[in-house]
Amino acid sequence: MPKHPVGRRSETLRELLRLPPGERVDLAGHDARATPGARDGKQAAQAATAHTGRRLARLQERLWAAGTAGDHRRVLLVLQGMDTSGKGGTVKHVIGQLNPSGCRIRAFKAPTEEERRHDFLWRVRGALPAPGEIGIFDRSHYEDVLIARVRHLATPAEVGSRYGLINDFERELAEEGVTLVKCFLHISYEEQKRRLLRRLERPDKHWKFAPSDIDERALWPAYQEAYELALERCAAPYAPWYLVPADHKWYRNWAISRLLLEHLRELDPRYPEAGFDVAECRERLLKQT
Amino acid sequence: MPKHPVGRRSETLRELLRLPPGERVDLAGHDARATPGARDGKQAAQAATAHTGRRLARLQERLWAAGTAGDHRRVLLVLQGMDTSGKGGTVKHVIGQLNPSGCRIRAFKAPTEEERRHDFLWRVRGALPAPGEIGIFDRSHYEDVLIARVRHLATPAEVGSRYGLINDFERELAEEGVTLVKCFLHISYEEQKRRLLRRLERPDKHWKFAPSDIDERALWPAYQEAYELALERCAAPYAPWYLVPADHKWYRNWAISRLLLEHLRELDPRYPEAGFDVAECRERLLKQT
Repeated sequence: MPKHPVGRRSETLRELLRLPPGERVDLAGHDARATPGARDGKQAAQAATAHTGRRLARLQERLWAAGTAGDHRRVLLVLQGMDTSGKGGTVKHVIGQLNPSGCRIRAFKAPTEEERRHDFLWRVRGALPAPGEIGIFDRSHYEDVLIARVRHLATPAEVGSRYGLINDFERELAEEGVTLVKCFLHISYEEQKRRLLRRLERPDKHWKFAPSDIDERALWPAYQEAYELALERCAAPYAPWYLVPADHKWYRNWAISRLLLEHLRELDPRYPEAGFDVAECRERLLKQT
Repeated sequence: MPKHPVGRRSETLRELLRLPPGERVDLAGHDARATPGARDGKQAAQAATAHTGRRLARLQERLWAAGTAGDHRRVLLVLQGMDTSGKGGTVKHVIGQLNPSGCRIRAFKAPTEEERRHDFLWRVRGALPAPGEIGIFDRSHYEDVLIARVRHLATPAEVGSRYGLINDFERELAEEGVTLVKCFLHISYEEQKRRLLRRLERPDKHWKFAPSDIDERALWPAYQEAYELALERCAAPYAPWYLVPADHKWYRNWAISRLLLEHLRELDPRYPEAGFDVAECRERLLKQT
């Protein structure tokens, strides 16, 4: 049963999907098949996503233009979720609607040897969006409290200290003008099985599969618990977590487009005023043979 | 009068637009309003560009998939051209059709202090596509034989030595599996004036304009000469230059999409074979509760 209310017309999707900071999170209580806020079903949502994409692209251009004139604001979309939850699909279908020039996308894999020589936030700092850009993290620093916790890649004390370090880091980002939009793509255990089987059935999907995906899946409860902790401890007013039910791909795309739109509209970036004498430039240009 | 023949059906656009290595280039002899190979006009070309975009996206996925399995091949699109020639528009409209995850885009501006402490190819090496990726340079190492020559940012001897260094560099890239697609976006002096005036007329375009654009425009003949030299000296069979008439934006988008498609089809990247026992994985997965 959907945990989310359907929402009054005046309610934003941000309000519907945001996890309240500091409250316990029980993922089992959230239906991954729910479609909160998408009242008119799949086809209407797909049309709305395309429409939202065009609005996003226009706002993105304003954000970029403002960035060329000293506005430090930027957006960072953080995508987290279990294998097959649709992080890559979100980049393809949601971010694919934007101007790629203004997007800085980084997919975080297991850290390289060089990355392991630094603290866990080092590689993240090197991948941040510049002013005017929209950054996208496909996985992120949260892996260091997720797989690191489940797979014991760091001591419990180390992992325990990272929640606070992440909060400090994200507060620092927010103060520097970064709007954080953190989305947890929530899929069900059953849907993951369907998606993994599909990857095995189709030869053109084999490259997306690794036998280790099955081992990771065996640790599902531990991962859910690690996610619950991370979502609870690292949700802040300046860096909210959104729980996006993701069993339906169309809903996931609709919701994340919409969340980005709500944040960008709030930022309301403006084309900068000309820092030069327009009439004089026009005259000079017209005089050139 | 168009310099390019309209082309037989069997002729590729690569053959039509490629500048023959080692031959003198006379830009004045190339009509920037020409539309070689686009026989059916604007609307048909726009529909063809969208269709080509979908084919490009499918080939891009194969290239990426092959890259995950050890195929070192990748593509590097180099965009050069005078101010307003449409480098940014190409990224938006042509590259915007691809999956942004697999694109590595870099716009080169005036070198930073750090970049100036290194040789001119240093910053370029740091922006190359990884295996499986499509790299896009909006301006490139060619600026170091263009503005550097026109504005005397380096001695004539230094600039003179760079053509050979560029050729060595690009040969090295080709040997490492990089397919170079270098496009010179050729616009006319008159069209540039129209586009600059438009930027002045529209407040939402002011941010794209700087008074220095007018000073650069005053050096048009010197830039054309610098381009002619670069196109002549750095066209090689492994790193061809394509002259893309760019007064018509629809033609530019059509032509560059098409050039990328022809190159990617030749690469013919393949989804890799599964490196694991598919049936065994399927069984394990089905056994999981």
